[in-house]
Amino acid sequence: MTEYLVLRNARIDGALRHVHITDGMITAIEPASDLDDSRDVPASAATLDLAGRVVRPPFVNAHAHLDKTFWSMPWQPHLPGATIRQCIDRERSIRAAATEPQLPRSLALATRMIEAGVGVIRSHIDVDTLVGLGGVETLVQVREKLAGLVDLQLVAFPQSGIRADPGVADLMDEAMRSGVDVVGGLDPHGIDGDVDGHLDVVFGLAEKYHAPIDIHLHDEGPDGLAEIAQICERTIVSGMQGNVTISHAYALGSATSDAVAPVIARLAEAGICIMTDGPVGMTPPVLRLHAAGVPVISGSDGIRDAWSPYGVPAMAPIATQLAYQSRMYDDADFELVADIVSIHGSRVVGVDGHGLEVGCRGDLNVFDATAVAEIVAESISPTLVLRGGRVVPPGPSSWPPLPVTDLAAVGVAPH
Amino acid sequence: MTEYLVLRNARIDGALRHVHITDGMITAIEPASDLDDSRDVPASAATLDLAGRVVRPPFVNAHAHLDKTFWSMPWQPHLPGATIRQCIDRERSIRAAATEPQLPRSLALATRMIEAGVGVIRSHIDVDTLVGLGGVETLVQVREKLAGLVDLQLVAFPQSGIRADPGVADLMDEAMRSGVDVVGGLDPHGIDGDVDGHLDVVFGLAEKYHAPIDIHLHDEGPDGLAEIAQICERTIVSGMQGNVTISHAYALGSATSDAVAPVIARLAEAGICIMTDGPVGMTPPVLRLHAAGVPVISGSDGIRDAWSPYGVPAMAPIATQLAYQSRMYDDADFELVADIVSIHGSRVVGVDGHGLEVGCRGDLNVFDATAVAEIVAESISPTLVLRGGRVVPPGPSSWPPLPVTDLAAVGVAPH
Repeated sequence: MTEYLVLRNARIDGALRHVHITDGMITAIEPASDLDDSRDVPASAATLDLAGRVVRPPFVNAHAHLDKTFWSMPWQPHLPGATIRQCIDRERSIRAAATEPQLPRSLALATRMIEAGVGVIRSHIDVDTLVGLGGVETLVQVREKLAGLVDLQLVAFPQSGIRADPGVADLMDEAMRSGVDVVGGLDPHGIDGDVDGHLDVVFGLAEKYHAPIDIHLHDEGPDGLAEIAQICERTIVSGMQGNVTISHAYALGSATSDAVAPVIARLAEAGICIMTDGPVGMTPPVLRLHAAGVPVISGSDGIRDAWSPYGVPAMAPIATQLAYQSRMYDDADFELVADIVSIHGSRVVGVDGHGLEVGCRGDLNVFDATAVAEIVAESISPTLVLRGGRVVPPGPSSWPPLPVTDLAAVGVAPH
Repeated sequence: MTEYLVLRNARIDGALRHVHITDGMITAIEPASDLDDSRDVPASAATLDLAGRVVRPPFVNAHAHLDKTFWSMPWQPHLPGATIRQCIDRERSIRAAATEPQLPRSLALATRMIEAGVGVIRSHIDVDTLVGLGGVETLVQVREKLAGLVDLQLVAFPQSGIRADPGVADLMDEAMRSGVDVVGGLDPHGIDGDVDGHLDVVFGLAEKYHAPIDIHLHDEGPDGLAEIAQICERTIVSGMQGNVTISHAYALGSATSDAVAPVIARLAEAGICIMTDGPVGMTPPVLRLHAAGVPVISGSDGIRDAWSPYGVPAMAPIATQLAYQSRMYDDADFELVADIVSIHGSRVVGVDGHGLEVGCRGDLNVFDATAVAEIVAESISPTLVLRGGRVVPPGPSSWPPLPVTDLAAVGVAPH
C-alpha cells in the first residue's frame, strides 16, 4: 500500500504550504490557500498540521571527524597543544594507548547527528602509519549500518602528513579502493614542508580514482595564501573545477582584506569550495566569498576529540557561530547561512534528491520557528525530523531517567 | 510537616555526594560513600538518585534587558544601525509605534530564563524622556509576580543619555524611589560628550540612595580607556569599591595588551567588576582580569530586541561563547567560566543563600553531564531545575503539539 503523508501549513520560503509525501518522496507542494480537494489524497493518508512551523531540508555536516571522537565516553579534559604538530603527536599517543573499540563511539555520534536533523555527513578519516586503515574499516561499517538514514561520504585524511609519514601515500591509495570517496590533504607546507610533493599525491590519487578532493589548510599568512594559489593552479590544470574543497582556510580569515582579494578571485576561477565552521579570529570572509561565486559550506569539525573540547552534534549552533563570527545581523545573511549548512553542502557532497522540491526525498526538518533567520540567530534544532516521510524518533538519553513527577513542584507564570 | 528531599549521587566538585534539602534549605551535603543511616531521614522524605549527574547552583544572568524584548512575538527582522546613536534612535521609533503592552513579553522571557536554570537576574530598564518610568513599572510587576522563583535586581538605565536627554536625571532619581536597586550609566563620552557631567549624576544618585552602580561602556580606544580610568577615580574617591560594575567594556577587549595593563591594575584597586558576554572582537581579557583580582560576571544582554537578533534565555550558550571568544581550552578555564555565570554574579548582585553549601537555599541545577567543563564546552542546560527544593517544571511550548505518534517511524541505531 502506498504510504501517504500530508504536512499541512508548513512555512516554506515565508509562505504556508501543504507538502505531500508519497512512498518517501515529495510528490506535491501546494499553497495552503488552495482548496483541500485539489488533490486526490487516499483515505489512508496520514496528516500532520505543522501550524506554520518552518520546514527545511536536512542539515549537511560537510566536515566531521567521526573516526576519532570520544563521544559517549565520560568527559575527557582537553590537553592543549601549541602547534598542529604537537596536536598530532598528542593524538597519536592517546590512540596508541586506546583499548576500547571506536565503532560504538562513531556510531553513537552519527546517530545523535541524525536525530538533530543532519541528513548528509562528509567525514574525514585519519589514514597514517599508526592507525593504518582501521578508521576506514570502522567508518565503512558506520555507513552500512546507517544507510537510509544519512548519506555518509568518506575522506581519506593524511592526519600525520604524506611526505612526513612515509607509507601514507600507499595507504591512501588502498583506502580509495576500500570504499573511501574523497582524497584528503593536510597543510602541504606546514606539515609536509613540500607543497608540490604533497599535491602530487593528492591530485594523482584524485585523477586515478576520479574522486573529489578536500584539503585541510590551517597554514596562515603568506604561506597559506600561496598554498591556496597553488591548489587553484593544480585544480585548473587538472580540470578539477567544482571538485575541490579547501577546509578551514585560516589564511583567508587572518590576512588583510587586500591580500585576500586576488586569492578569492582565483578561487572563483578554479571553482573551489571553502569549508568553515566560523573559528574565532580565523573565519574566512563568507559574504565576500559568496559574492564572488565561491561556494561556502560548513561542518562540525571534530566533536569531543583530542583536537578540541568544543563541538556538538547539532548543526544549528554551528550556523549561529558562523553567522556571529561573520558579524551578520540581518535576515538575508542568516538565510544564506541556513543554506550554507544545508543545500550548499549537499551540492558539494553531491547528494541526489536533497531539497524541498517535488521529486526530492521526503527528508525534512520541522522547526518551532516562524522564520529561517530565527533558526540561525537562536541555534534552534528541529522539533521533528523526517526521513523518507517517516519520523526519526529522538534517541534515548545515555542517563537513567529522573522520576521527578513524584516531587513537589513550584508554579511558574503562564507563557 | 517538614518537606525533606534527598538528592543521592550528585556530582559536586568532582565527587559524588548526597544533598539533603529540608523545608527549602540545604541542610547537609555528605560523601556518597557514607553509610546511608548516618543521618536521620524521615520516612516521608522524597529521594532522587541523580546517578552521578553534575549539580551546580543556579545561573546568574547579571546583564539582561527584560524591558525591551520582543520575546513571544513572531520573529522580528533586525534593522542594523551603524552607530550606538543610530541604534538608540531606531529603537525609539519602534517603541513610539508599539501598541501592545510589554508586561507579557517581559514576563514570558523571565519565565523561560527560570526554566533554563537562571536564579538571579540583573535587568537594566530604559529610563528616558520617551518611555519615562513605564519600563520601571513593568519590571517591578515582573519582580512581584516571579518572587520566590528568581531574584530580580533592577537598574535605572539612561538609554538615551543623561545630558543628551534633559530630564533623565530627574527620572532616574524618581526611578530609585520607585523600586529600582542600581544606578545605571551609558558611554559618558560617546553618548553624552560630557564624562564629568554624566558621572556627577550617576555617582550622585548612588550616594543619595546608597545604591550600586552599573555603567554600560561601549566606547572603544583611548576614549574608552580614559573613561574607565575616570570611573576608577570616582569609585575610589567616593568609597564605592566593590559596588561598581562596568558592563561590556569593549575598550578592554579591542585595545593592545600593553595599553590595557595599567587599566586592569587600576580596576583591581578600585574593586570594580567587569560584565561581558564574549562579543566577537571586543571581549575583555577574562583570564588577565581574573588573575588581577578583578571580578568578571556575565549575562545575556538583550534578547530578541531592536539591538541584536542574537540571544537566548539560557545561560549555558553564553558561557560557551565567553569561553570560546576567550580561546579557553582546558578544564580549569571552563570551571572559571561556570563560576562567572553563577557564583561570581551572585556575589556582585548581592544575593544571600546562593551556593552549594549547608545553609544555602535549595536552589540547584542538575545537568546530564559528568564534568562542569562539559556544561561550558557543550552549552548544556539543566535537565532538572530545583527552587527551594521543589521542581521547576518546563514550561509549555508556545506551539501547538505535534501528534507524531500516529506516524510511521524509522529505526535508528542504539546509543
